[in-house]
Amino acid sequence: MTVRASLQSLHAYVPGEQPSGDRVLKLNTNENAYPPSPKVFEALGAITADTLRKYPDPIGRELCGAIAELHGVQPDQVLITNGSDEGLALCTRAFCEHGGRVGYLTPSYSLYPVLSAIAEMERVEYALSADFRWAMPEEVDVDLFFLTQPNAPTSLAMSREEIEQLLQRCPGILLVDEAYVDFADENMLSVLKDSDRVLISRSFSKSYSLAGIRMGYVLGPRPLIEALYKIKDSYNTDVLAQWIALAALRDQATMLSNVTAIRGARTRVTRELTKRGFEVLPSQTNFVFAKVPGGRDAETLFKMLRDRQVYIRYFPGKLTGEYLRITIGTDEQMDQFFAELDDLF
Amino acid sequence: MTVRASLQSLHAYVPGEQPSGDRVLKLNTNENAYPPSPKVFEALGAITADTLRKYPDPIGRELCGAIAELHGVQPDQVLITNGSDEGLALCTRAFCEHGGRVGYLTPSYSLYPVLSAIAEMERVEYALSADFRWAMPEEVDVDLFFLTQPNAPTSLAMSREEIEQLLQRCPGILLVDEAYVDFADENMLSVLKDSDRVLISRSFSKSYSLAGIRMGYVLGPRPLIEALYKIKDSYNTDVLAQWIALAALRDQATMLSNVTAIRGARTRVTRELTKRGFEVLPSQTNFVFAKVPGGRDAETLFKMLRDRQVYIRYFPGKLTGEYLRITIGTDEQMDQFFAELDDLF
Repeated sequence: MTVRASLQSLHAYVPGEQPSGDRVLKLNTNENAYPPSPKVFEALGAITADTLRKYPDPIGRELCGAIAELHGVQPDQVLITNGSDEGLALCTRAFCEHGGRVGYLTPSYSLYPVLSAIAEMERVEYALSADFRWAMPEEVDVDLFFLTQPNAPTSLAMSREEIEQLLQRCPGILLVDEAYVDFADENMLSVLKDSDRVLISRSFSKSYSLAGIRMGYVLGPRPLIEALYKIKDSYNTDVLAQWIALAALRDQATMLSNVTAIRGARTRVTRELTKRGFEVLPSQTNFVFAKVPGGRDAETLFKMLRDRQVYIRYFPGKLTGEYLRITIGTDEQMDQFFAELDDLF
Repeated sequence: MTVRASLQSLHAYVPGEQPSGDRVLKLNTNENAYPPSPKVFEALGAITADTLRKYPDPIGRELCGAIAELHGVQPDQVLITNGSDEGLALCTRAFCEHGGRVGYLTPSYSLYPVLSAIAEMERVEYALSADFRWAMPEEVDVDLFFLTQPNAPTSLAMSREEIEQLLQRCPGILLVDEAYVDFADENMLSVLKDSDRVLISRSFSKSYSLAGIRMGYVLGPRPLIEALYKIKDSYNTDVLAQWIALAALRDQATMLSNVTAIRGARTRVTRELTKRGFEVLPSQTNFVFAKVPGGRDAETLFKMLRDRQVYIRYFPGKLTGEYLRITIGTDEQMDQFFAELDDLF
């Protein structure tokens, strides 16, 4: 046998569909409907042949410095990664012995079990209740806990008190995956600053409208960040992504303005769905998770919308099977969404 | 203990220095001295806000297709990676059980022992002889063998017969790392096509002058490539790198013209160094590995050149300690190099 035994049965992570075409309404992968900062095009315009032919700065000093300044941490507390997924994968290799225990909620980001299986870790799943809240056990006995905060696909945020409680009950390292946090009311940076066991991961894919460039970062205490540096690929991020991310980060105004627009649309979408009988969870993200009205089948509705080129996301399963996840687009896109939906109802 | 025990003592891979400044003569990291295809700037100019805000094609179908066509393999025999280093790292996770045996030559690419240590594999080192040839043992008992071909830092290529012999003597998977192969007289594609245990990795960093974008690929039999797909990060390459690499690949003329210029300069540099008493190995790469003339100390010469802003590479050690590795630059750069060298002699 030449391929590792544990891979034979492994089911790879399945990304959301990427349909293309002018008529497609794409509300399925939580991309940002608004363009990134115009400054990123200035950065692209400044790319020279010399920039391309040389190796990039392996640790992206300039970007790390800007990130550190933004969050009030030191530059050596920052690791930039090839999308935040790379940071998560690195954690499974750095913070558990082989065969160790990785914990996460279900439902949550479906990449966690895949990463844990690839690293041959024991997967410890903590199921949410029917209202997608967590009745946290007295002991959360894992080496590493992945917590998407706010969570996906539920859109719900845990309180700071709950997270502090988790930290008391779990002896391992807590990775707070804040991919959606710019759309939320609060972040967990202060929890990170008070602990030597908390890491926060962030992404440029959502609030900065840069899913295409694959850039994320991990913040944390020096000894943990240092361990991640040791095992990352030497040149894990490319020079274009570094420059574009830097330009976007320095233009907080554009990011915040896009976030404000999406939060506004989120309120309207929640109201409109509620009017139509959906139960919408109070979202802290750039999507809503909504239970379809009684008598309707979520999967059928998902498929009917897809037949009309309206792409949203459906997650089969006991807890999630009556819900649909809808990315918040522009006002025009959401008008189109409701027109199609009303046509079906 | 929160950080994995094996990481405590791990020495991370150290990339070559990246000095900057107009006066620097940078011949230390085997970058291509010539600009990439002008087509890559057309590709960059076509990047839109929509391209950036959306996730890239997770498997880069268009680029895979072009690579497959170039090499006469099927698209599902190609995996594009975030630099060829990612491909190498994936192999350590896919083709050995935990604690398995990874083999490689010494000296060779110094990333192999680091990747093997990160994956907690047993490192099986095969030392080259004093003339940097390999007296291959009857049995090469490893699960995975990394062979840089042509080798670095030696610049030497093994013959096809030697590689076929290795394949007979080694029961595991053979990864032929062809990062420098476009500068060589032959490649091992036909060996790959005849075996179900051979993988080839390639890079856009050297011959395509695109070290900045981090793009490489692995070619191989379907079952092995499929295993790598299962464990790669979902979106492991970004949209910009995909488009730029595609543009460069489609312009074979520019790549080949740059390669021809470098091979020409290599001949001249070899002759000029030999005139000055260096023993230069017959290079099949975009660098030369040269033994300094008797009575001279390689490390001292390396440092004296660095003091003059001339960066080349020195590898301490029993076998390599009398040699210097010099990247082949443009004719003008090599003239400057010899002017500085002659000034010291």
